[in-house]
Formats: sequence, C-alpha cells, structure tokens
Amino acid sequence: MELTAIGHIERTENGNYIVVDERYAEGLLGIEGFSHIVVMYWLDKNDTPEKRAILQVHPRRDMQNPLTGVFATRSPVRPNPIGLATCELLSIDGLRLQIGATDAFDGTPVVDIKCYTGEDAARGKARYPGWL
Amino acid sequence: MELTAIGHIERTENGNYIVVDERYAEGLLGIEGFSHIVVMYWLDKNDTPEKRAILQVHPRRDMQNPLTGVFATRSPVRPNPIGLATCELLSIDGLRLQIGATDAFDGTPVVDIKCYTGEDAARGKARYPGWL
Repeated sequence: MELTAIGHIERTENGNYIVVDERYAEGLLGIEGFSHIVVMYWLDKNDTPEKRAILQVHPRRDMQNPLTGVFATRSPVRPNPIGLATCELLSIDGLRLQIGATDAFDGTPVVDIKCYTGEDAARGKARYPGWL
Repeated sequence: MELTAIGHIERTENGNYIVVDERYAEGLLGIEGFSHIVVMYWLDKNDTPEKRAILQVHPRRDMQNPLTGVFATRSPVRPNPIGLATCELLSIDGLRLQIGATDAFDGTPVVDIKCYTGEDAARGKARYPGWL
C-alpha cells in the first residue's frame, strides 16, 4: 500500500497553499465549485519506526488528559501517519490552491484532496469524551 | 510513504465491523467515549496502475454529471486510493468495533481510525457545485 505525493503544503507570509504537482493538474477540474476541501497529508516528521509504534498518547500532549489510544485521538503520531483536515478553499491560481488555516508544516506532502460534502454536518447528536 | 493495514472491514448479516489487528489493540483505549469515528480505508480494488492514473470522472458514475477532477469528488478512483467515511460507533467487543452504515466491501483493509470531533459540523456556510 504505497502512497505518492500529489503536491505539498506551502506556507508564506501571504497565506497557506497546496501546490499540486503538474502531472495531477487534470484532477483539479471543478474544484472551484467547493468552498471547503478535505486534505490528507503525509505527516513526514512522524514517519519513523519509533513514532509509528506509539499506540497511546495524552491527547494534545496535555498530561492532564487521560492516556488514550491513538485511534481515539487526532494525534499526528500513529501507525500510518496520515493527517486529515477540512480546509477553506480561498482561491485557485493554476496548480496553487490557497487554503485557510492549517496546522500542517511548510513542505508537508499532500497525498489526497477530496471535496467536502457536508455529510458530517448533520451529525448534531455526536457524543465526545470529557477531554475534548 | 508506505501504509500498513491496522485491521479490516467485516460485513455480516448481523452488522458491519472493523476488526482491528491484535498488535494494535492498545490504540483503541478510550474509543468508547465517541459516538462516531473517522475511518480511512485502502480501496484495494482500485489499487492498479490503470485506475490510479485516472484523474477525471463523472461523479457517481452518472454521465449527466459534468466531467470532474477526482480531487473535486469522493470517487474511489484516485491516485492514492484512500477512502474516508465518518461511521457511527455502535458497540465494541474487544478488537471488533461494530459500525453503522458503510459502503466499504467485506475484507477492505483499514489503515487508520481517528476520533470524530465534530469540528466540521460548524461549517454551515459551505458551498457545493450543482452536481452534488
């Protein structure tokens, strides 16, 4: 199960961007119709055997939060270091998509972009643990 | 950028399950606090060089829908065939998580589980193209 970067994150003083590789340009057709996109990152700084072996964390690195399995968190440390974020799509200039706030680092590989369909927005009844 | 399955989907007459591999059991601690989880699948049936090269589709395989870049869709055909779904977490029995509706096939590898934080639910102002 091998991933290939389709672009990368670029952080500048003027804003945050996803820069898509030229060979994937056709994949962007119609993306301007969406106000938000779902972005999957490869959390390359956490792609080490040691970090990928970590299965429990204190969420948000706050020792006050209970030790929790990584699958019950959004921790960037996990067996498959894929980050996930819904980003506002502010503008498009060719292969450069300007996005809103992101906590991804400059240079982080992007492995997928999906449209944000709002399907999750209907889940008003979701339940969360106390630490969240 | 190599992924490892952390479990797989099991579809039965009695329900749908994520069966987590024994070696990742510790990663589940605290997941019972969530009503919903975000699941990433490896869409193994689409993991061929031919399918991974497809960059434009008619969404939902409906020719009435405009030809659209895969990054502006939820198509299972894309350069990195990762599927994404928010699933209701119905019950937990050891390594078996019973989930609600899913369109994943029986046996589909699961590559990540994250908690559903509801952060997207606030985006009442999202905009979508006509085909959605």
